[in-house]
Amino acid sequence: MIYLDIDYNSGAHPQILKALVCTNQECNAGYGFDPFSEEAKKLILQKCGRRDSEVFFFIGGTQTNMTVITALLRPYQGVLAAESAHINVHEAGAIEAGGHKVLTLPQHNGKIRVDELEAYLENFYGDDTWPHMVSPGMLYITHPTEYGAIYTLNELEQIRQVCDNYNLPLYLDGARLGYALYCGDTDVTLEDIARLCDAFYIGGTKEGLLLGEAVVARKGLLPNFFSIMKQRGAVLAKGRVIGAQFLELFKEDLLEQICSHAVQMALLIREGFRERGFAPMIESPTNQQFFVLPNRIIDELEKIARFEYWGPRGEIDTAVRFVTTYRTTEEEVMQLLDTLSEVMDTEDVPE
Amino acid sequence: MIYLDIDYNSGAHPQILKALVCTNQECNAGYGFDPFSEEAKKLILQKCGRRDSEVFFFIGGTQTNMTVITALLRPYQGVLAAESAHINVHEAGAIEAGGHKVLTLPQHNGKIRVDELEAYLENFYGDDTWPHMVSPGMLYITHPTEYGAIYTLNELEQIRQVCDNYNLPLYLDGARLGYALYCGDTDVTLEDIARLCDAFYIGGTKEGLLLGEAVVARKGLLPNFFSIMKQRGAVLAKGRVIGAQFLELFKEDLLEQICSHAVQMALLIREGFRERGFAPMIESPTNQQFFVLPNRIIDELEKIARFEYWGPRGEIDTAVRFVTTYRTTEEEVMQLLDTLSEVMDTEDVPE
Amino acid sequence: MIYLDIDYNSGAHPQILKALVCTNQECNAGYGFDPFSEEAKKLILQKCGRRDSEVFFFIGGTQTNMTVITALLRPYQGVLAAESAHINVHEAGAIEAGGHKVLTLPQHNGKIRVDELEAYLENFYGDDTWPHMVSPGMLYITHPTEYGAIYTLNELEQIRQVCDNYNLPLYLDGARLGYALYCGDTDVTLEDIARLCDAFYIGGTKEGLLLGEAVVARKGLLPNFFSIMKQRGAVLAKGRVIGAQFLELFKEDLLEQICSHAVQMALLIREGFRERGFAPMIESPTNQQFFVLPNRIIDELEKIARFEYWGPRGEIDTAVRFVTTYRTTEEEVMQLLDTLSEVMDTEDVPE
Amino acid sequence: MIYLDIDYNSGAHPQILKALVCTNQECNAGYGFDPFSEEAKKLILQKCGRRDSEVFFFIGGTQTNMTVITALLRPYQGVLAAESAHINVHEAGAIEAGGHKVLTLPQHNGKIRVDELEAYLENFYGDDTWPHMVSPGMLYITHPTEYGAIYTLNELEQIRQVCDNYNLPLYLDGARLGYALYCGDTDVTLEDIARLCDAFYIGGTKEGLLLGEAVVARKGLLPNFFSIMKQRGAVLAKGRVIGAQFLELFKEDLLEQICSHAVQMALLIREGFRERGFAPMIESPTNQQFFVLPNRIIDELEKIARFEYWGPRGEIDTAVRFVTTYRTTEEEVMQLLDTLSEVMDTEDVPE
Repeated sequence: MIYLDIDYNSGAHPQILKALVCTNQECNAGYGFDPFSEEAKKLILQKCGRRDSEVFFFIGGTQTNMTVITALLRPYQGVLAAESAHINVHEAGAIEAGGHKVLTLPQHNGKIRVDELEAYLENFYGDDTWPHMVSPGMLYITHPTEYGAIYTLNELEQIRQVCDNYNLPLYLDGARLGYALYCGDTDVTLEDIARLCDAFYIGGTKEGLLLGEAVVARKGLLPNFFSIMKQRGAVLAKGRVIGAQFLELFKEDLLEQICSHAVQMALLIREGFRERGFAPMIESPTNQQFFVLPNRIIDELEKIARFEYWGPRGEIDTAVRFVTTYRTTEEEVMQLLDTLSEVMDTEDVPE
Repeated sequence: MIYLDIDYNSGAHPQILKALVCTNQECNAGYGFDPFSEEAKKLILQKCGRRDSEVFFFIGGTQTNMTVITALLRPYQGVLAAESAHINVHEAGAIEAGGHKVLTLPQHNGKIRVDELEAYLENFYGDDTWPHMVSPGMLYITHPTEYGAIYTLNELEQIRQVCDNYNLPLYLDGARLGYALYCGDTDVTLEDIARLCDAFYIGGTKEGLLLGEAVVARKGLLPNFFSIMKQRGAVLAKGRVIGAQFLELFKEDLLEQICSHAVQMALLIREGFRERGFAPMIESPTNQQFFVLPNRIIDELEKIARFEYWGPRGEIDTAVRFVTTYRTTEEEVMQLLDTLSEVMDTEDVPE
Repeated sequence: MIYLDIDYNSGAHPQILKALVCTNQECNAGYGFDPFSEEAKKLILQKCGRRDSEVFFFIGGTQTNMTVITALLRPYQGVLAAESAHINVHEAGAIEAGGHKVLTLPQHNGKIRVDELEAYLENFYGDDTWPHMVSPGMLYITHPTEYGAIYTLNELEQIRQVCDNYNLPLYLDGARLGYALYCGDTDVTLEDIARLCDAFYIGGTKEGLLLGEAVVARKGLLPNFFSIMKQRGAVLAKGRVIGAQFLELFKEDLLEQICSHAVQMALLIREGFRERGFAPMIESPTNQQFFVLPNRIIDELEKIARFEYWGPRGEIDTAVRFVTTYRTTEEEVMQLLDTLSEVMDTEDVPE
Repeated sequence: MIYLDIDYNSGAHPQILKALVCTNQECNAGYGFDPFSEEAKKLILQKCGRRDSEVFFFIGGTQTNMTVITALLRPYQGVLAAESAHINVHEAGAIEAGGHKVLTLPQHNGKIRVDELEAYLENFYGDDTWPHMVSPGMLYITHPTEYGAIYTLNELEQIRQVCDNYNLPLYLDGARLGYALYCGDTDVTLEDIARLCDAFYIGGTKEGLLLGEAVVARKGLLPNFFSIMKQRGAVLAKGRVIGAQFLELFKEDLLEQICSHAVQMALLIREGFRERGFAPMIESPTNQQFFVLPNRIIDELEKIARFEYWGPRGEIDTAVRFVTTYRTTEEEVMQLLDTLSEVMDTEDVPE
């Protein structure tokens, strides 16, 4: 079976696992005050090129988002985000459970547009009744988005400008950040992200770790953040478990290795499907690829591969998603494409 | 250096780690719907002797407590707990952040007394202004307590009775449950806990896992609990990481092995100190032992061992805590006791 | 100056004020346990034709909505409402501050459509990832809506049916309920509302009181509701102030008098504008009327009347709202219409 | 019947009511932007002697406390208060529902002691685990307290000093403030309160209004406070109702008249009981007086007067409270004392 369902379907990348095994027996301080965590934080800041920032380790994405957003907002404020944003759809109301509204902007493959952001803010403050409404207190974006799309450097710089004009902290959810940074087709570097965002996180869970996410935030932005983390259940007693993994991910170029391999596999899938007449639904340069396929073909592909429907099954055809990881092999991709070739008729291909 | 500071200072028990390594490469469903988690849950229920209960895995103790308590209470209710309860002191206000007051009872080595519980409830409903106050909506106890003490079966049964009379769900925080169950000096079994509590958790983090806690709750008690867990950031994408560890912990008798060993080491410490004239501060039959020692002796012991102060350093003597784990060896304990013998003078011993 | 800006721009209806003056000196129990409140509650239930319901008095609309919704929802649930719903737009995030998401449906003059409600629910439960999303836990509608529109009896019955199918409590915000009930152009009675809704409120503030709203809810729906009200700051020490006013409003037919008069004045405005060539923006049969008028005319009308812009001022013309109350006189309406006639040119009228 | 049960048992002081009647027919802006409210705010600031402060009107005490405290605290902070503080006991968990813990200090007739405050803060920051605990973020005191006691100027100044040292905003709950300011036996003026507190409120409900409380806060302390008020349901549509009442209360010296009269009546009761052998339980110089009386006497007094038990009825005697208001007459007090004389035997008097 070829696993293309999700990027957290297996354990850790072998090198990460090895790091855990090697460090297992050392006794250290809890709560992330161990040398692995300290060292990992230093390395991350180095790669970000920032001395004015600090790093905090979290366990998962929803926890990261809810804790950072709670810490950044005042009670009368909400968080601006694309309608399709993970925090608006798939975190079971974690932001609202923390007391804040998600204020939505239109989404374009999961991205927001700077002109629509600006229009929202102008309209908001142009309406005399705004004190009766939830004030926008920060901006949340995903990079890559839930649909695999990425921002250009120019777009991020424009967004930053609007944030500056309206005094909005910019927070970037990088659950799959590596796949955007190392996808080949981008002009945005980790340093750019670290320069343009007030806070962001580098996902570990979806990029080869057992678990763990690393928040990078401007110093002073999140006062007493340890206490807020603790209060939200986000302080791991054996913080070393996350620290040791991130240390391995950043001490050489493992993150890049993991992500660029997965992206290459994803692009093979994309081009293979395109050549066979199935243009991708969304122009994604990252490790998620979306297609609308005839149900008949889907049923055949499911015999050899696991992947997800993207929405409900249609009468004739259905949108599906393929996700690649460090484990996806060229052989597996070829097998998928060969099977596609075998099972398709000429009438399957949309004109 | 002898590490007696805390029971989460190292990685996982080697057998647990091996289980993680062995299962690492299999691809499975996320969010705890993997076969390791499913199997582990079954085993836990078996050992609890319950068919009417279900199991949920969490990442850490604070997260477990805040999520279960949120799910059990209605907005007008608070949670009854000893003044010294972890949820009242060391969870940074997690319960209050979820909207609920911690209603405190006096503590006796971290335990509540059934007569004081009953008096609280009688007084509460005897006061005509009770609708202006926070209603007790559940009871939280720890076993063993933060001070290592444990309840007797009779005490737990009496507490259960009061809970029944006042329609209060009983929730037991078992962050160190194994140390109570396998301490030799108890008449309370896992089946008893599972029978008497509406919900409880078996701690993994402090009992040999990298991370993870297992909540056992009566079926139907926590409707849509997956969504509440997700909302509190408590659903691990790679849920298997916890599942595989608990599977190892419960498939034979590893939990008992780990805990009974640690308790034996703790009792060696206790008796060794007692023989040398230092009676324990608290009669703890579990893996935490507390003593008041002269500062001079503490300074000497710190040269070979790591342990924690229990409160501020006094002028002459100070309370300290020793915590044992599966890694603590008899040799280490002997070294500690020998050092004690060497450095103490006759005037050190309290009469 | 003719005041058509809002229905809470003056004090109380003279008869209401008189009731307050007459009862002022009597000493009574606080918190709504006075005989005025008790009597008013009985009368309201009588007029609702329900023995299975109970009444709770609140101070204002936002407070009412946030308290009822908090009491009805479990932590994993949100409230379904039209995008334009007061709770979604103009309550400054009160629902989210209470921990719950507002789940939005399209709005049609402020109304929801039963087919769109049903589609939402079908799609929600048809999506396998629903446990990762906020579950719909109740439905909120306004009657009349924020735009003055009203539901038909048939529409309400269909909505009720869907609510039954999905086990959703139905809650109706009746901040201006009287204007809908006594508008002449409706087949919905107070008894219908009381029969079809699990809970609803009858607005006082916008219908002639100094302040006060009356929630009618099915008995048992809101356990320990006094405590939840107290917790949200919604229990008035001198509860009598609201009780005495509602007693006056319901002891004969003052609510009907107040509302039917205001609606008559509103319809005079509507027909007067229509005759002069300005069709209403929205077909409102209640006390709010909306028109798009040339700015030149608006400027002239503002010399004699106060009314509100409905959105930003346009380049050429602007939407405006006229709101009538018990105080609006036929003479005032005629003066408004005469001024309109005087200042308009033939080119002002849209074809 | 003589009403000594509570200071909110009747409607408004006649002069207040008259002000409401006189202003009733004017049409004005809603939400407190009316001229009555504006004028009242100016007067209050004048009497406080502050140009650097601003005034916000609320409806009731619990609402005031929860809204101000929410606005002042960050998520990781709690509010320090006496164990007996209204926010800790009788607000049904409003502070916790807003996400914050009430951190308690010992109480002395409802007052906190500055040395105990200081010790709390020293211990807190002296404990290395403080980031795992709720940080003290502000101090809440009541003046007079729930037991009628008052602070001296010296005590308030010392408390202020500690607040400065630890960067804690000082908030004073003045639900009955006038009874403390105008009790004769105080060296604390309204200007002192306004100078020493970052925020405080002047109660209206318990001092002659139908409803209403006035918060005075340092400018800039509560940014976007209107939105937070709106979110907590604390913005009254007809804000004028509170504005017009406070205008009357402050335009001359009505607050002083009301409160000093009530206090005089309370002192008559106190001295009358003392002379008859019943020393007050608490040395209260304000409008609440507490005594322990034989049940037999209580039963007799209840035939002519209404008053409250302070705690449960004892076997032999019971604590009771008498509360005076602007309506209490000297004649009523004499009747109470005469009845006491009549019904008491010599054996009733404690030695």
